Amino acid sequence: MAADFEGRLQETGKRLYQLIEGESPTLFQKQYWTGKVLDWCMRDDAFRVQMFRFIDVFPYLTQLETITRHLQEYFGRPELKLPSALQWGIRVGSSTSFTAKMVAKSFADNISSMAGQFILGSTPQEALAPLERLRSLGMGFTADLLGEAVVSESEAEAYFQRYLELFGVLHDVQDRWPALGESPTELDWGHSPKINVSVKASGMYSQMRACAFDHTVAMAKERLRPLFRKAVETGAFVNLDMEHHGLKNLTLSLYRSLLEEAEFHDYPHTGIALQCYRRDSEADLNELLQWARDRKIRFTVRLVKGAYWDSELIWAQQSNWPIPVFAHKHETDANFEKLARIILQHHEITRLACASHNLRALATVIEAAKDLQIPSEQIEFQVLYGMGEPIRNALRKAGLPVRVYAPIGDMLPGMAYLVRRLLENTANESFLRQKFAQGVAVEALLRNPLDLLREQPPPSEAPGTTPESGAKSPFQNEPLWDWTLAEHRERFSQALGRVRKSLPRMVSAFIAGKAVQTDRKIYSVNPNAPDEVVGLVAAADKSHVEQAIQAASAAFPGWRETGYRDRAEFLFAAAERARKMRYDLAALQVFEVGKAWSEADADVCEAIDFLEYYGREMLRLGQPRRMGQVPGELSHLLYEPKGVCVVIAPWNFPLAISMGMTSAAIAAGNTVVYKPASQSPVIGSMIYDLFEEVRLPPGVLNFLPGSGSEIGDVLVSHPEVALIAFTGSRETGLHIIELAAKTSRYARGIKHVIAEMGGKNAIIVDADADLDEAVIHILQSAFGYQGQKCSACSRLIVLEDNYDRLIERLRSAAESIDLGPVEDPKNFMGAVIEPAARDKILSYIAIGKEEGTILVQRDDSPDTSVSRPSSLVPRPSFFVPLTIFTDIRPEHRLAREEIFGPVLAIMKVKDFEEALAVANGTQYALTGAIFSRSPENIARARREFRVGNLYINRGCTGALVHRHPFGGFKMSGVGSKAGGPDYLLQFMVPRNIAENTLRRGFAPSSE
Amino acid sequence: MAADFEGRLQETGKRLYQLIEGESPTLFQKQYWTGKVLDWCMRDDAFRVQMFRFIDVFPYLTQLETITRHLQEYFGRPELKLPSALQWGIRVGSSTSFTAKMVAKSFADNISSMAGQFILGSTPQEALAPLERLRSLGMGFTADLLGEAVVSESEAEAYFQRYLELFGVLHDVQDRWPALGESPTELDWGHSPKINVSVKASGMYSQMRACAFDHTVAMAKERLRPLFRKAVETGAFVNLDMEHHGLKNLTLSLYRSLLEEAEFHDYPHTGIALQCYRRDSEADLNELLQWARDRKIRFTVRLVKGAYWDSELIWAQQSNWPIPVFAHKHETDANFEKLARIILQHHEITRLACASHNLRALATVIEAAKDLQIPSEQIEFQVLYGMGEPIRNALRKAGLPVRVYAPIGDMLPGMAYLVRRLLENTANESFLRQKFAQGVAVEALLRNPLDLLREQPPPSEAPGTTPESGAKSPFQNEPLWDWTLAEHRERFSQALGRVRKSLPRMVSAFIAGKAVQTDRKIYSVNPNAPDEVVGLVAAADKSHVEQAIQAASAAFPGWRETGYRDRAEFLFAAAERARKMRYDLAALQVFEVGKAWSEADADVCEAIDFLEYYGREMLRLGQPRRMGQVPGELSHLLYEPKGVCVVIAPWNFPLAISMGMTSAAIAAGNTVVYKPASQSPVIGSMIYDLFEEVRLPPGVLNFLPGSGSEIGDVLVSHPEVALIAFTGSRETGLHIIELAAKTSRYARGIKHVIAEMGGKNAIIVDADADLDEAVIHILQSAFGYQGQKCSACSRLIVLEDNYDRLIERLRSAAESIDLGPVEDPKNFMGAVIEPAARDKILSYIAIGKEEGTILVQRDDSPDTSVSRPSSLVPRPSFFVPLTIFTDIRPEHRLAREEIFGPVLAIMKVKDFEEALAVANGTQYALTGAIFSRSPENIARARREFRVGNLYINRGCTGALVHRHPFGGFKMSGVGSKAGGPDYLLQFMVPRNIAENTLRRGFAPSSE
Repeated sequence: MAADFEGRLQETGKRLYQLIEGESPTLFQKQYWTGKVLDWCMRDDAFRVQMFRFIDVFPYLTQLETITRHLQEYFGRPELKLPSALQWGIRVGSSTSFTAKMVAKSFADNISSMAGQFILGSTPQEALAPLERLRSLGMGFTADLLGEAVVSESEAEAYFQRYLELFGVLHDVQDRWPALGESPTELDWGHSPKINVSVKASGMYSQMRACAFDHTVAMAKERLRPLFRKAVETGAFVNLDMEHHGLKNLTLSLYRSLLEEAEFHDYPHTGIALQCYRRDSEADLNELLQWARDRKIRFTVRLVKGAYWDSELIWAQQSNWPIPVFAHKHETDANFEKLARIILQHHEITRLACASHNLRALATVIEAAKDLQIPSEQIEFQVLYGMGEPIRNALRKAGLPVRVYAPIGDMLPGMAYLVRRLLENTANESFLRQKFAQGVAVEALLRNPLDLLREQPPPSEAPGTTPESGAKSPFQNEPLWDWTLAEHRERFSQALGRVRKSLPRMVSAFIAGKAVQTDRKIYSVNPNAPDEVVGLVAAADKSHVEQAIQAASAAFPGWRETGYRDRAEFLFAAAERARKMRYDLAALQVFEVGKAWSEADADVCEAIDFLEYYGREMLRLGQPRRMGQVPGELSHLLYEPKGVCVVIAPWNFPLAISMGMTSAAIAAGNTVVYKPASQSPVIGSMIYDLFEEVRLPPGVLNFLPGSGSEIGDVLVSHPEVALIAFTGSRETGLHIIELAAKTSRYARGIKHVIAEMGGKNAIIVDADADLDEAVIHILQSAFGYQGQKCSACSRLIVLEDNYDRLIERLRSAAESIDLGPVEDPKNFMGAVIEPAARDKILSYIAIGKEEGTILVQRDDSPDTSVSRPSSLVPRPSFFVPLTIFTDIRPEHRLAREEIFGPVLAIMKVKDFEEALAVANGTQYALTGAIFSRSPENIARARREFRVGNLYINRGCTGALVHRHPFGGFKMSGVGSKAGGPDYLLQFMVPRNIAENTLRRGFAPSSE
Repeated sequence: MAADFEGRLQETGKRLYQLIEGESPTLFQKQYWTGKVLDWCMRDDAFRVQMFRFIDVFPYLTQLETITRHLQEYFGRPELKLPSALQWGIRVGSSTSFTAKMVAKSFADNISSMAGQFILGSTPQEALAPLERLRSLGMGFTADLLGEAVVSESEAEAYFQRYLELFGVLHDVQDRWPALGESPTELDWGHSPKINVSVKASGMYSQMRACAFDHTVAMAKERLRPLFRKAVETGAFVNLDMEHHGLKNLTLSLYRSLLEEAEFHDYPHTGIALQCYRRDSEADLNELLQWARDRKIRFTVRLVKGAYWDSELIWAQQSNWPIPVFAHKHETDANFEKLARIILQHHEITRLACASHNLRALATVIEAAKDLQIPSEQIEFQVLYGMGEPIRNALRKAGLPVRVYAPIGDMLPGMAYLVRRLLENTANESFLRQKFAQGVAVEALLRNPLDLLREQPPPSEAPGTTPESGAKSPFQNEPLWDWTLAEHRERFSQALGRVRKSLPRMVSAFIAGKAVQTDRKIYSVNPNAPDEVVGLVAAADKSHVEQAIQAASAAFPGWRETGYRDRAEFLFAAAERARKMRYDLAALQVFEVGKAWSEADADVCEAIDFLEYYGREMLRLGQPRRMGQVPGELSHLLYEPKGVCVVIAPWNFPLAISMGMTSAAIAAGNTVVYKPASQSPVIGSMIYDLFEEVRLPPGVLNFLPGSGSEIGDVLVSHPEVALIAFTGSRETGLHIIELAAKTSRYARGIKHVIAEMGGKNAIIVDADADLDEAVIHILQSAFGYQGQKCSACSRLIVLEDNYDRLIERLRSAAESIDLGPVEDPKNFMGAVIEPAARDKILSYIAIGKEEGTILVQRDDSPDTSVSRPSSLVPRPSFFVPLTIFTDIRPEHRLAREEIFGPVLAIMKVKDFEEALAVANGTQYALTGAIFSRSPENIARARREFRVGNLYINRGCTGALVHRHPFGGFKMSGVGSKAGGPDYLLQFMVPRNIAENTLRRGFAPSSE
């Protein structure tokens, strides 16, 4: 870098600044409504939240009355300070009064006009005039079609068709546009097509799944290819936009893969965006450059800072993943300068489109280009439509090529786009805010971000990701695999191969630390390939039950005396062991219970979570609690184990739920007889293996696979058993509860039963629900793992105002998802667990046909062409069609009975009141969810939607240990929530020990 | 006060100081063992605790081996710093090695010699020589007989006889003693008998009960009268010593009552001690002076500071009573000066015996006497034998009358006395410690305590005794009545009269806020006078059950929606109401269930405690708990009521247990159908009344008296019932559990049962147990409320080394307590609840006679001569004899089955190991206690004595809310401890509500 570079940069920056001086973007002009609103947003964060949320929901409010109601709900809270300039009369009168309607009307108009500042028109036709106005001002454009999230292939297809139309409309008129710049060619500035279009990959394919990476790329190309082809035909420029972390690697691969195709290889007018706020953006850039150099490809990089900083941070923190973006704005600024320079240095293969409103960034690019003797017309400066007009004008005045990013679309996607732009403008770090709203001095605006970084170093990584020596770090959920990283996909794939080779597994029972063979065996098979035997597993009989309980009884005193810290350490060690085996533990689930990759991975993570959480819980609860503080007395409340615990586990979370119940019992000091489900005994044996590998003393955990009908009652009614932890069906649960309540005269105590049973869970979709989110979550909740979760959504309750919209989107989305053996990661849904389950589900589908109307039935026979080495006994397929019924009423069996399969019953209701009544109107109370943007309805659901786990604006499955203590009431269970702070208490008896420390009138003062 | 008084005082003080200079008490001489030990005690508080505790237990250690073991247990802890000068080899070798025995022997010798410094001899004969030595040095004495706590009338009688003997021995020799002082009479200093004896009231009567105040005074006089008579006969001085708070008013009354008797009225040689550390000592003094002036009585006041400061503080804090002593030593010092002056001012009726080692106090008295022109021979200066010899010598040198307080007694009481003296010497505020161990300058020693007080004002009263507005103060147990205060005795007595007049009470059922009459009635009678009908109470049938449950169901939604803070307020209001009615609520119990005054009072206090505690618990638990801290999500764990709760209550804690279960259910938001015990429905109706008076909404609490066999099963099996809270017998409890576990297909959920059932509780008496305490606590635990407590002690497990001593003391103590109708406060034990109970208990006594040997059977027919106005139906008496069996073995029915009456089974065991095995060897696990002074055995009991409530060195009944969360396991119950932090959780279902707050990539930062 030239020694005087910084000096020249400052000069250029100040020159640009002078060109800006006196101009102000309409956005910040306080005489207008938008300016007033933004001004108040910057002053009052609570108002900003409400305002942006209101804008977000606004397009769904199709009647003045609903606008008024929402205005009151969002802004009517007395604690909210409202700007006096915006006294829109929200707090007066009913939502149906004339005044209220007038207010609503004026509000709606204002928001529409606010949106009009950022969006050129709702269709390409409408946008033509503003686009031509831009060109007449000497500026190019890149047209972007706004759209809702694409949740189905029909939506992707429609979006694709809109793009084709856009090309057509622009192509029809481009000849009448003179080229920009001094060059005599038909290209703007001598090199750039007049038509320039930006596309998002997520709009081109609805079933993007990072774990099915290659499949996703291939499918997305199916629509991008014709689009690129159209660009070539029309001589247009096409840019692939960059979205959030989950799509970044997919988008890069997609772009490269397309350009590697012969028809595009030599086409110079394509580009891709790179986000400088990403920590890996430099590496990505270098890789792209290397690739382009190797392949002799020319391309453009639109260098941006990135528009999803807040959400990237939140998503990463929620996932407990490394944060992919820089913590500090200055780091991003510095990285922008660095990457811009790298791109300029590779001018021979790549062109820079500098997309920033930041004065210093612009000056840096201008001066760096000079350094490298790149003609200024060779670089584009891109600005967003409606933002920072003074900057684009200054750039124009400076004679530089300016391209305006020009969004086109209607209100629904428009509002989402608007919110993002408003957030950007009102963020503390926003250049536009600093310059135009706060009047920060030019010297400050031009300061070198590296200097600023030195002055305010970014905070170091959050502590506690690794346990410190001695004290345990706070609990953190085990992060799921980030499938966008090739390593995880490859290692999972290898694990599938490795595990398959190990099949069928021969599994013994284990009693008192010794393997026990049995005459009878359980055959465990792959539900997606029933002739593949996963395991040949010992089947215990009554005599084994007696042995196992005696072993647990014998081990109890020693285990009880083992310090609670030591007991917890066994859990932590088992967690560490499970972490090392994650791929294999998950792969085994794909084969034995038919879990898709992500579902299997989540189950293993949850098992690890239980170990880490209950271990820590025991550390917390093991410490005796001082009761009262009177002198002369030491009173402590403490907890001790109950005795022998029988764990009867289900197959649907074969590792996690088994591990939860077992590890809680063990941590608390009980000894365990663990009966895995007959459908998942091989995974069940992993529980035993994990604890054996960390040298849990013999007899503390006894592994007793067997048939429930053969050994269940014997286990439950045994007089030496102190407690039973059960998860499974309601019928079995109620039977266990009744049986355990008969206290034998030989019993050591009264048996305690912890029972987690079924659910008939509902999701309510309010009239104003965000359907982009709702559809995705409903599908995941209803059909994830084939609906075989007690938390699964089996009822969908939709308010009539949103009914048609939702039904159509849901139908097409449900028709778009891939079905088939889950070994193939592209398949969202595979076979159900066993023939009995299949038959029961099919019978409910038959009932549903009587009771309601089929909306979707995916009876396409799945692709079962997965190669299998073994083929023992041919069996019928365990697949059932994904089925959605409408016209279901609360009294229907489909609305009342648990199906435990991929069947969803939709019920239309007239209002929220009815929605709640229907939702609550079952014997179960496990999970539930609502999608709503009405503060009032959300508050009401919190109070009145009575389920164990209620979710707001997200699906009703996927509870995380600690964050979402899990469990229901009514017929859904008895006992406290798994993964919550009260759970371990159930495995223990409380004791109080009170010592009178006063002797001869004298008590130690310290006590 | 003369203007120059302070100046003269300082001069006199300094003169005395000069007379002291150069002398040092043997106690602080570090070349001796005692000096070394005291030196280390003052440096290291942990060592001081262990040393004084060891000294306390020492006399029980009759073998070198047990001494060694205790030495190792007390001093062998590695964290304890031991003075290098005292390397007694504790940490080496086994307790039976030769070295260990030598160490033990030397330690024993040292302790004996330490005791010899403070005690003149073990008998009067032995003490004669030291007494005469004192007289030969020109000092008088007052002889005090040390004794163990008097727990029986035979012990009181023996103690009394020892005093008679003391008078005899002294009388035989007094003639050979020349009188002290210059006076020519036979009296010392011209006015004082040579024989001077100090007596403690507590030694003269074993059944001192403050609530039976007059009875106690009368009974104590029965032995004090002959003693005073003996003094008159021998011309001796007799002084009544002052003990702790509980005896202060009794002692004062006793003294006055005696002196009002004609034979003592004119005898001038008696005195009483007053403790200046008591806040009420000035009032007591003035009252005494007024009394003496009115009655023309002359007497002496021994003015002391008080020797029980630590324990008075502890007892008061444990009782939540006002602290009777000054918080600050300077206050006591100032009060001493003030009271001394008052006494001197009344020289015509009272004489001052100034009992202080404090230089300034002495100087004050000397100078004040001069001011008042009282001849110095008229004032006595009393010092303790073995303490502060330089001071007594200085006083002698100054020509002042000195009397030495001279304890006589053997090792057992000697060690207790020794510990008190050592505590005094090593206390931070001790004058002796300051002067002789720390060498504080004379100016500091003589500073005016009023000045010191101004510089270091005493801390203000502990906050939180009254609830602040808004936030609730921390929970505090409701203080029991202090029966030493006449107000409480009188008001209780009045309440008994008032309540009796109101009998029989006519009580309805209450359903949905309305009184409901029934055809059938329950007759509730006074167990101590079965022809007295306490109530005529509605008896509900099945139709009432249905109505009550429907009422509770109907009230549930509204009550659930009532904010938890508001619900808690109903409890606080009911507590306030109960507090206002305390006397009547307790008096009713005396009549309906036969509770003695204190037991009835305790039950009412516990009921108030439950209200205050569960109210606060709901405030704690009502606040939703944030789960996880990830951005973009608001997850809360919260608790909601279960529904209709059936409360089935016992009669033995008729208000407290009913209130506990009911108020917990109500606080948690459930609605209640409350069935009181058929034996205590009138008290049960008070629960309803209290809540009705605070306007609990109708239907939230429904009062349904009735027969368990008639309506119990209907209540339990009703499908609308969500939970059952039961306290009662094991049989009923198990039946309820079994019945509730049958889930009806119409049920709203699975019923939850909280059941507190029986116990077969044991107290273990270790070989080294302090029997002074053990005997009292055993009697209280076994026979308090006639043994009709689930927590009552029914097994006494005694180590053989302590067996004979304990059995003898326990036998005589059991024979000393008063039996009879508990309306009379002197009676410790009255009738059992009903004929069926009586018959069952009598049948167990018959069994006991087969299985074991009767140690005590109190078949003296009780005094039933209480006057009664009504006499409806004559009924047989419900009294059963207090019975204690020995020779019971673990397999006996008396050792296994709950009797629920005044029957105690004693089992002898050879060691602690066996004691624990026997204690744990029942099907119950409710309460238990051990008396031990072995740190090792205490630690072991904590681990291995497996009961719900274990008490160390105190009895096994009397659990307090919050301080002792109550409840057991095995066959003693299911559920979490009443009055503890987990109790309320059982009445609620947990819910988790997780809101995704991220919208359009934007989440409020505050969430």
